[in-house]
Amino acid sequence: MIIILKPKATKQDADEIIARIADLGLKPLYMPGTERTVLGAIGDERVLAGLHLESHPLVERVTPILTPYKMVSRDIHPENTVVKIGRVPIGGKLFVVIAGPCAIESHDQMTATARAVKDAGAHCLRGGAFKPRSSPYSFQGLGIKGLRILQEAGRKTGLSTTTEVVEAGDVPTVERFADAFQVGARNMQNFRLLTKLGRCRKPVILKRGMAATVEDLLLAAEYIVSEGNPNVILCERGIRTFETATRNTLDLNAIPFLKQTSHLPVIVDPSHGTGIRDFVTPMAKAAAACGADGLLIEVHNNPKEALSDGQQSLYPEQFARLMKELRPFAKAAGREL
Amino acid sequence: MIIILKPKATKQDADEIIARIADLGLKPLYMPGTERTVLGAIGDERVLAGLHLESHPLVERVTPILTPYKMVSRDIHPENTVVKIGRVPIGGKLFVVIAGPCAIESHDQMTATARAVKDAGAHCLRGGAFKPRSSPYSFQGLGIKGLRILQEAGRKTGLSTTTEVVEAGDVPTVERFADAFQVGARNMQNFRLLTKLGRCRKPVILKRGMAATVEDLLLAAEYIVSEGNPNVILCERGIRTFETATRNTLDLNAIPFLKQTSHLPVIVDPSHGTGIRDFVTPMAKAAAACGADGLLIEVHNNPKEALSDGQQSLYPEQFARLMKELRPFAKAAGREL
Amino acid sequence: MIIILKPKATKQDADEIIARIADLGLKPLYMPGTERTVLGAIGDERVLAGLHLESHPLVERVTPILTPYKMVSRDIHPENTVVKIGRVPIGGKLFVVIAGPCAIESHDQMTATARAVKDAGAHCLRGGAFKPRSSPYSFQGLGIKGLRILQEAGRKTGLSTTTEVVEAGDVPTVERFADAFQVGARNMQNFRLLTKLGRCRKPVILKRGMAATVEDLLLAAEYIVSEGNPNVILCERGIRTFETATRNTLDLNAIPFLKQTSHLPVIVDPSHGTGIRDFVTPMAKAAAACGADGLLIEVHNNPKEALSDGQQSLYPEQFARLMKELRPFAKAAGREL
Amino acid sequence: MIIILKPKATKQDADEIIARIADLGLKPLYMPGTERTVLGAIGDERVLAGLHLESHPLVERVTPILTPYKMVSRDIHPENTVVKIGRVPIGGKLFVVIAGPCAIESHDQMTATARAVKDAGAHCLRGGAFKPRSSPYSFQGLGIKGLRILQEAGRKTGLSTTTEVVEAGDVPTVERFADAFQVGARNMQNFRLLTKLGRCRKPVILKRGMAATVEDLLLAAEYIVSEGNPNVILCERGIRTFETATRNTLDLNAIPFLKQTSHLPVIVDPSHGTGIRDFVTPMAKAAAACGADGLLIEVHNNPKEALSDGQQSLYPEQFARLMKELRPFAKAAGREL
Repeated sequence: MIIILKPKATKQDADEIIARIADLGLKPLYMPGTERTVLGAIGDERVLAGLHLESHPLVERVTPILTPYKMVSRDIHPENTVVKIGRVPIGGKLFVVIAGPCAIESHDQMTATARAVKDAGAHCLRGGAFKPRSSPYSFQGLGIKGLRILQEAGRKTGLSTTTEVVEAGDVPTVERFADAFQVGARNMQNFRLLTKLGRCRKPVILKRGMAATVEDLLLAAEYIVSEGNPNVILCERGIRTFETATRNTLDLNAIPFLKQTSHLPVIVDPSHGTGIRDFVTPMAKAAAACGADGLLIEVHNNPKEALSDGQQSLYPEQFARLMKELRPFAKAAGREL
Repeated sequence: MIIILKPKATKQDADEIIARIADLGLKPLYMPGTERTVLGAIGDERVLAGLHLESHPLVERVTPILTPYKMVSRDIHPENTVVKIGRVPIGGKLFVVIAGPCAIESHDQMTATARAVKDAGAHCLRGGAFKPRSSPYSFQGLGIKGLRILQEAGRKTGLSTTTEVVEAGDVPTVERFADAFQVGARNMQNFRLLTKLGRCRKPVILKRGMAATVEDLLLAAEYIVSEGNPNVILCERGIRTFETATRNTLDLNAIPFLKQTSHLPVIVDPSHGTGIRDFVTPMAKAAAACGADGLLIEVHNNPKEALSDGQQSLYPEQFARLMKELRPFAKAAGREL
Repeated sequence: MIIILKPKATKQDADEIIARIADLGLKPLYMPGTERTVLGAIGDERVLAGLHLESHPLVERVTPILTPYKMVSRDIHPENTVVKIGRVPIGGKLFVVIAGPCAIESHDQMTATARAVKDAGAHCLRGGAFKPRSSPYSFQGLGIKGLRILQEAGRKTGLSTTTEVVEAGDVPTVERFADAFQVGARNMQNFRLLTKLGRCRKPVILKRGMAATVEDLLLAAEYIVSEGNPNVILCERGIRTFETATRNTLDLNAIPFLKQTSHLPVIVDPSHGTGIRDFVTPMAKAAAACGADGLLIEVHNNPKEALSDGQQSLYPEQFARLMKELRPFAKAAGREL
Repeated sequence: MIIILKPKATKQDADEIIARIADLGLKPLYMPGTERTVLGAIGDERVLAGLHLESHPLVERVTPILTPYKMVSRDIHPENTVVKIGRVPIGGKLFVVIAGPCAIESHDQMTATARAVKDAGAHCLRGGAFKPRSSPYSFQGLGIKGLRILQEAGRKTGLSTTTEVVEAGDVPTVERFADAFQVGARNMQNFRLLTKLGRCRKPVILKRGMAATVEDLLLAAEYIVSEGNPNVILCERGIRTFETATRNTLDLNAIPFLKQTSHLPVIVDPSHGTGIRDFVTPMAKAAAACGADGLLIEVHNNPKEALSDGQQSLYPEQFARLMKELRPFAKAAGREL
């Protein structure tokens, strides 16, 4: 950890801080400069964080040397982690496609969509039973009834299932019905929920928050992993920027960054990442090309009538075409699809 | 609602959509143009939202005419709403200052800080018992023990109290100990929590999310109000932008916008809004100047040792100076302090 | 154009505005609603823009129906435009790679780099003689001497050349030495420069500004095309967002958007788009996958000693590997490389 | 300067870098850690910047200790700089108001507006003759004819004048007619223009770019000052964020930051900073409250007919009211108005 002092800090001030560093069992360093004095501290700086030196009135800036996350870092776990949703491995050779509607609306809708995505080659089925919606006047999901429909559609088609969980209290219920949890962008920093999921065994698809840096995303994953559940799949789904031509700005730079920095699998959601049906297929290909381990895609058997996010949902025939066009890109990336 | 069709849409396509609009009991309008056909729908467009026309493959864009929120809008409630935290009215003549530490750390810290802010003229006491922290390795708060400490500090000083609630399940507990709920930026779209708070009577300080537009903030408030709790106080606390010189970008433009658009009280948190102790006082003055109804300020009896957010906490003597310097600005704004 | 009036606007106010619309030869529409009155205007709304109705105190909002750009729009020019840099066609079947150093530093550096990129299969050579740098203390480029070096390196290797122009006054000089102009992100809205380039015949690579929406980019292109130069190549190079893990956020969503909306060729600069050497290759592949027409890549014969942007420049052997790995992706996208 | 090496860097790699630091006459420091090796360099790190260590393949990150700007920094110039536009001092006791239309449209418009703002108490007159506009189809300004009109209006009213300059080549012309140059947001990093202005004596109002950090703004000012012109006035005018309710997000945090970091005067443009007439007055008051040295405000004698930015221009009577309401805030801030 590097501690830059303010110009007015004296030698005595520096000595006081150096003593506090040494008290923690770390090795302090003193680097007087012409305009600023700089201190260093060698050792586990997560311990040092307990000193809260950034609060000190004579400290101008504190620069950590190590990352604030640990268990999700590739530094200490160089091999890729492969996480299984049901029997589907994510993070290995297979390029995994998880598809289905934004919201579970009815038995018929879910069965028709599940069959369509299965036929086109999808590996897992998605569908939301609890829907966080910006407006209280929008459709909020079918709840437990929706979970049953999802489970049944999964059984009928042999697809593993994943669904969003929005609150710590719902975790046991969702765990009973689905093969994987999904944490939505708005809940990426719902630390109570993350902690609870860290005590489960089933995998968690953790979506990046709209204002979350990739470091924030890794810290959120660290919450889950540090509680004991190593089965986390990171998901890039677009961030909020000044650009309004698309619903979000899909940050594909995050893929090589996350793959380099962490051993966890990384998937991409081009449906939320663009918000526009026509752009889902090109961005799905781009995700495969830059090293993602899979995709999360919204497909609806009748998008015109969809109760939520219809404008970004693919028609079944569009999804089938996407899968077909995707294959040469997955292959070029050294993956199977 | 204005519906702009794609260039390839035919008269027949337009007629189909017009029929669906009419079916809902709204008045449709047909406006053929040289390059695009435009449709209109007159009536309650919240009903029309049920049509999900933006999902239609021949619709290019849908532009609402009305705001998506209703109960929080000044359109239907022209007078200011005054919300009371304990006996302190917010949204009226008084310019209200809520002060206290980021986190409740101990009995001594809380009592010392409460006395200091009371002596300086603060109206309410803040302090967090449940702390949402980006890193799992940071201090997470004292929980219920913290709530008791807060309550006692409030009683001793006669200050009304407010504290953060992070989950729907905690609402009854927090309600027992504090005079007002605080919803943090990360929970602004925790709709389960908002709905639960909408069924309480105690006031809710709703902080704007880091990536939330002011419209998102008003929709989140609508969740609470539409459930039956009209006592919502909006709080601007900075948004996330590319600027890194300050922790967040305090969006004071939001104050005149929210005061014009909504009847709810609006306060400002310059501590999170800047993240830097030296900037809290100037931005507190700016908040008073542009029409805010009050402030939420972090004060710690010993910021150097604070377990969280120490670098943005004021020393008691700084807070006393802030209060003194603030008075002429509050007065210039026609408020009492 | 749709004009939404404020609630307090009367029938008389609406009539006044309707009369102004009709005076311009457009067809006005009157749509009284329960909460707001809406007006429409059918015809060329670029004429209507002259009315400046958004300034009217009783107008709440004006929503255009048509795009503000025209000549660059695919609406009026459905086929792809193919632009030639020297003899290299961009926007056709070929997936074009333009490579070279950020700044031209010396004769030796340029010749060595040009040979390396030519051998690896690049089609054009880039190199900056006039460098806009954030700090006055950074290397500012070799100026005309640099242009001569670039021209010579191009001749020796048979590569077409492109270089940045930073001011209208430099246009004739740059035109003499290079096969194409490059307009940097900081000059995307230097309208004097754009206008001057619109009076040339040589192609212009127009880079998106750091805070420019894709609509802003198309409007900047419209400046050039409307002056008479149809040879514009759009370039996505990353925008500025809150994410700091990468230098910029490469907005690949912009590629399908621009290809759908405009007939102009679109290339991607993954070097500035990421700012990190290791991420250039994966993002180059992603650009090919989502439909870009080519790439602009920084390569330096000795990045360790580069005078600018060394951390994002590829080593010659890395570039050769990139070209090799890129081919199957270009092929999967139906392109030749 | 702190240099953090990658985990795989050996002692030998560190020694190589240490030798390069020592060669430059700086004092190197070696700090081996358990997970990373950290190097330090003490001395003028602007010299060290010439090493481009961030390009080194074994360097993970370089953290400067000093700011990259120097002459504009308060570190080396603790007193406030007072800059004079004509006879009006900016940066001293006076709270300065510069007002006038966005664009100079005609002799009558300019004279009427100048008289109105003079009567209300403004100190300087603004008006644009060269207008950078996003669309080529918008009004581009009257050019030199406009400059003459501005000069005459200034003379008639006794107001000092300021106007935008968009290109290095126009500097001598503008200098002849106006008392101060204005550099617009889109030109903040037009380094050719900045360098040219650095060779003039007349003051420069430098507006922050839409995607510029406050550090970028100070570096742009350093361009001008380091060329020899110390008369720079910094201007906050809003940045581009995801918020769309206002045209820009006025970043008032920048005011205390800039006043603390630099000795240059700082003014605020609430007209562009909000883009909405009704919000100009509250944000003008906020600017005075948080320590700005003055304001730049758009006033038009007939905003309904304005050729540009009418929706953010004040009516003369609104401006007069603003001046009246502003006085107690300026006084509370210890300023005269």
